[in-house]
Amino acid sequence: MSTTTITDVPAYCEQLADAAVAASHTLVTLSGAKRAAVLHAIAQQLIDRTDALVEANAADLAQADELGLTNAMKDRLKIDPARVKKMADSVAQIADQVDPVGQIIDGFVRPNGLRIEKVRVPIGVTLIIYESRPNVTSDAAALCIKSGNAVILRGGKEAIHSNAAIAGIVREALQAEGVDPNTVQLVGTTDRSVVGELLKMDEKISVVIPRGGESLIRAVVEQSRIPVVKHYTGNCHVYVDSGAKDLPEGMARDIVVNAKVQRPGVCNAAESILFHADVPELLIESCIALAENSVKLRVDAHAAKLLEGKVDTLEADESDWLAEYLDLIVAVKVVDSLDEAVAHINKYGSKHTDAILTSDTFAADRFVQQVDSADVMVNCSTRFSDGGEYGLGAEIGISTDKLHARGPMGAADLTTYKWVVRGNGQIRE
Amino acid sequence: MSTTTITDVPAYCEQLADAAVAASHTLVTLSGAKRAAVLHAIAQQLIDRTDALVEANAADLAQADELGLTNAMKDRLKIDPARVKKMADSVAQIADQVDPVGQIIDGFVRPNGLRIEKVRVPIGVTLIIYESRPNVTSDAAALCIKSGNAVILRGGKEAIHSNAAIAGIVREALQAEGVDPNTVQLVGTTDRSVVGELLKMDEKISVVIPRGGESLIRAVVEQSRIPVVKHYTGNCHVYVDSGAKDLPEGMARDIVVNAKVQRPGVCNAAESILFHADVPELLIESCIALAENSVKLRVDAHAAKLLEGKVDTLEADESDWLAEYLDLIVAVKVVDSLDEAVAHINKYGSKHTDAILTSDTFAADRFVQQVDSADVMVNCSTRFSDGGEYGLGAEIGISTDKLHARGPMGAADLTTYKWVVRGNGQIRE
Repeated sequence: MSTTTITDVPAYCEQLADAAVAASHTLVTLSGAKRAAVLHAIAQQLIDRTDALVEANAADLAQADELGLTNAMKDRLKIDPARVKKMADSVAQIADQVDPVGQIIDGFVRPNGLRIEKVRVPIGVTLIIYESRPNVTSDAAALCIKSGNAVILRGGKEAIHSNAAIAGIVREALQAEGVDPNTVQLVGTTDRSVVGELLKMDEKISVVIPRGGESLIRAVVEQSRIPVVKHYTGNCHVYVDSGAKDLPEGMARDIVVNAKVQRPGVCNAAESILFHADVPELLIESCIALAENSVKLRVDAHAAKLLEGKVDTLEADESDWLAEYLDLIVAVKVVDSLDEAVAHINKYGSKHTDAILTSDTFAADRFVQQVDSADVMVNCSTRFSDGGEYGLGAEIGISTDKLHARGPMGAADLTTYKWVVRGNGQIRE
Repeated sequence: MSTTTITDVPAYCEQLADAAVAASHTLVTLSGAKRAAVLHAIAQQLIDRTDALVEANAADLAQADELGLTNAMKDRLKIDPARVKKMADSVAQIADQVDPVGQIIDGFVRPNGLRIEKVRVPIGVTLIIYESRPNVTSDAAALCIKSGNAVILRGGKEAIHSNAAIAGIVREALQAEGVDPNTVQLVGTTDRSVVGELLKMDEKISVVIPRGGESLIRAVVEQSRIPVVKHYTGNCHVYVDSGAKDLPEGMARDIVVNAKVQRPGVCNAAESILFHADVPELLIESCIALAENSVKLRVDAHAAKLLEGKVDTLEADESDWLAEYLDLIVAVKVVDSLDEAVAHINKYGSKHTDAILTSDTFAADRFVQQVDSADVMVNCSTRFSDGGEYGLGAEIGISTDKLHARGPMGAADLTTYKWVVRGNGQIRE
């Protein structure tokens, strides 16, 4: 599991996939108690071997400048004892979740006596392609073990030593518990052609989840014969409805500021704020508060007029309605109706998370029904669109696709179902 | 909606997709009662205009020889009053199904007071690519209307007149009920480049369902940026376990024969029968019955020895274990254990439908757990693997994929979900 030069990439990938398929066949026979025991063993081992993890991580950090990592990237890459503790806690938390495997989703008896059940089962073999943060290695491994899946992990070269150390601990723990260590395999080379090769193996790998920048994800979709679950960007909106004027004093302003400012670099932060023309005072109050929080405002002509002499603004253009700034910048627009807000969000948004602030139940219901996004919120911050906040434990990813899973994905989203049909001799006429 | 020559294919496809997206935005606001009313109107119109449908179909049949259609294909293409009645009945049955839209799949309150629901919603815009049978046009349109989706239908050129007549009736009924007729659009050209163009439009079309031969489906997967739900082949198995000797007299034989013979040309017919070595008498009895039903036997050496002098057999090779004959031919193999049967099925099968015949509950449970197929059956014919038999009404397709839907797919499988989060001012700390 160390970094090696692979001479025959197709053969190497075939071997990874075959080993994963073989592991997946044994995983379906494991009890939930056994899968949880493996996870608790991994959590303990992560803590016990904190020093080794920090040391491996130091090797990655030593090459970070050479690889041209920014300070923000270096920060995401870094492992210290507190972060190891967080990784271990996350694994232990996943261990203690309700077991999704074997849940009966639906069941009925047909007129001919056939007893039919839809039963949750592991997907089989998953491929996770990710960048920078080494905790994805332990989180993804844990979610796949919890849900009875084998996983092939392909991390970034900037984290190869950290990822190898974490995956090594996971594999040792699997082996110690008598479970096939190939349940979790880390691609042991940074050779880029490995990804292209793995993405052809739709007979052996059932799903690929890319996590990283938009260009990484687009490249995966372009190449993959395997179904991809993904999200490209998070262009999230907060719409302050005319009905927001009857909300408690300051609530709309506080939510707008929180959605933009609390952690601007993440996908569920707000990028555009839409204000109904009937609530100019909420627009002014919110924009002043945003400016006080160092947020730069890109505004339409109507908003510019309202804000003139109060805060500095820049003129917004079409590109601002599409932008995922991931920064202390926000686009601001005035709309004349809820319909205009909905149309704007469905046109420019990324189908991720959009919120309405209103005390009007009719407006809230219409917004919830008509905005075509994975997460639609009423009177709270878009920042709650998150697996942890929804109680799913660690996320395996977020989906803005419509198939299979939508929004934050937990362990249950790594399962499919099987139709189980039990009879007593039925044949078709 | 007639067959026309399209000069600018990309522009034509853009227009189809934009019209579908616009329709999908209005569809989410329709009540279930309205969607059902549209479907009942379509069912009535199909009946009332039987003569026009038969006439349009005659135009297709007139060109069938020129297009090189076999007799079986001509039979699938044909529309007569009885078949129109069946199409109408199917649409009416879909109308009366439980409405999947708006169902709350999950719901809970978080410690911070956020009320979270997962609510079933339409997927949006679907693309169905299919061959020959014109009833797919009305079935697919009906399932999409029921589930609140807009659909772009791309039928085969051999059925273009029939499909245009059916789609015309559907669109008139939509319009008469005040619903956007672009809810259902039929591609009005047989130009093959249209498919490639549509398959690039992943921003506007959310799922593609190809229905037809394996080469059609592989071509769609190869080209598509849109998620595809599909099944390639049906290599279904019946495994006659050692525990089958205690089943009622003749039951194993009757199920084996039914699975193979009742309709050999369809995907849920059995292609391979595995017998445990401990039940030679069931092998002999079943194979004699198969031969009496004109089934040709391709058998391994062990089975050949048992059948010597009793029925004619041919020697099976590796290709027989992989074959989807869709004909009165069957592969027969003797296995020494349930484990061997499971390993054979997971290696050679197509993850479609596989059955075990046994009176041993432990054997049945292990088979159900370990066989990695969409439908796993105990003591009944594989032929029951079907949306109608499961009570789903008409099928939009069958999936041997693991994502989104598996096995027969009904109207509910044309929905996704939305996370709806309601708060009263929550912000993240």
